[in-house]
Amino acid sequence: MVTMGSVSLSTTTRTALTRHRERACTDRADLHAVLDAGLVGHVGLVRDGAPVVLPTGYGRIGDTVYVHGSTGAGWLRIPDGTPVCLTVTHVDGIVYARSVFNHSMNYRSAVVHGAARLVTDPEEKLAALHAIVEQLSPGSWEHAREPARRELAATAVFGLDLAEASVKVRSGPPADDEPDVVAGGRWAGVLPVHTVFGTPETCPTLPAGTPVPGHVADRRPA
Amino acid sequence: MVTMGSVSLSTTTRTALTRHRERACTDRADLHAVLDAGLVGHVGLVRDGAPVVLPTGYGRIGDTVYVHGSTGAGWLRIPDGTPVCLTVTHVDGIVYARSVFNHSMNYRSAVVHGAARLVTDPEEKLAALHAIVEQLSPGSWEHAREPARRELAATAVFGLDLAEASVKVRSGPPADDEPDVVAGGRWAGVLPVHTVFGTPETCPTLPAGTPVPGHVADRRPA
Repeated sequence: MVTMGSVSLSTTTRTALTRHRERACTDRADLHAVLDAGLVGHVGLVRDGAPVVLPTGYGRIGDTVYVHGSTGAGWLRIPDGTPVCLTVTHVDGIVYARSVFNHSMNYRSAVVHGAARLVTDPEEKLAALHAIVEQLSPGSWEHAREPARRELAATAVFGLDLAEASVKVRSGPPADDEPDVVAGGRWAGVLPVHTVFGTPETCPTLPAGTPVPGHVADRRPA
Repeated sequence: MVTMGSVSLSTTTRTALTRHRERACTDRADLHAVLDAGLVGHVGLVRDGAPVVLPTGYGRIGDTVYVHGSTGAGWLRIPDGTPVCLTVTHVDGIVYARSVFNHSMNYRSAVVHGAARLVTDPEEKLAALHAIVEQLSPGSWEHAREPARRELAATAVFGLDLAEASVKVRSGPPADDEPDVVAGGRWAGVLPVHTVFGTPETCPTLPAGTPVPGHVADRRPA
């Protein structure tokens, strides 16, 4: 019914697709585009043999995606080389079919498998944090105070290579069975889903009338 | 910097919180509310010792959340009792702080840990599919053709108990360090993020002018 899954790019066992092959994208530009349009990803880890999935911000430089967190945070207290999976999903529409069975979603998703590499080089770490902040809030790195040494020390950064990744996209109208189309009498179509930004809310500790800077006021969803 | 994590409700090792305890919610109603407001969740599995995270639709009945998929789909070819983690996240805002370090997101997230129970009872399976379809597209179960026997046979449904779950919420303005507030000269605040529905797109195989039914035309985000 709600059909979503994962696929292709590099074809290893875990990225090779099991169904809906037509939804696979094989272009690295597609992978980059799905990642670059996101605000939050879901990172998977194995803890005591069981999976743990947590939301996280991220950023991309070339074919590396970076995640970060407090060195005191539970989920980032992982050794260098820990197997992780980072998934980014955009819901683009609800697909209403004539049959319940053919209901679906329009979406774009990227699934990245790999070993989390602890970033220790100060230059790469700063570049990674810059990328993560730019992904969350373009323009903030220039506008806000840059990280102090103690803040950098309190932040762990991991890099994940995009070598083993898959992208899956569903778009367009419902795919109904012919007898359901012929039968008629039921609506089918797509209800588009969009992410939008509201009116910026200035921090109450700032003076009334403080203007909202352009990198916030003019921001549009990716 | 982009601080997101996971917490509480039942306090087992994996739901007990490691930081930002003030963001934990301990009410089951909060858990239900976060789940009920979502369109897509991210389910984690362990495959060959590595984590896999995939987007999926889901539905809730009481304290059980259900996921489903094709019996031919790779990720659902799992044995009864497989450990899974289902996470649902809503991004509510981008938190711009005076410092890069204190940038964050406003969000609501629910993390459910448990063993995926294969649903074999026909009545529970039908009720679960009803809940999944209602979550995706309220009103569709009544409007669309109900599943045929062969469609039900092609669909696997798993139930996940909400006994071990956590909810974490961040809301409100940025939490800047006092020296940064005093220093002034930098904007801080929240850019709200909303999910909205666009204009319904009627399937091109329907006659022009086919009216959009109320359960689609009048639908508003949860």
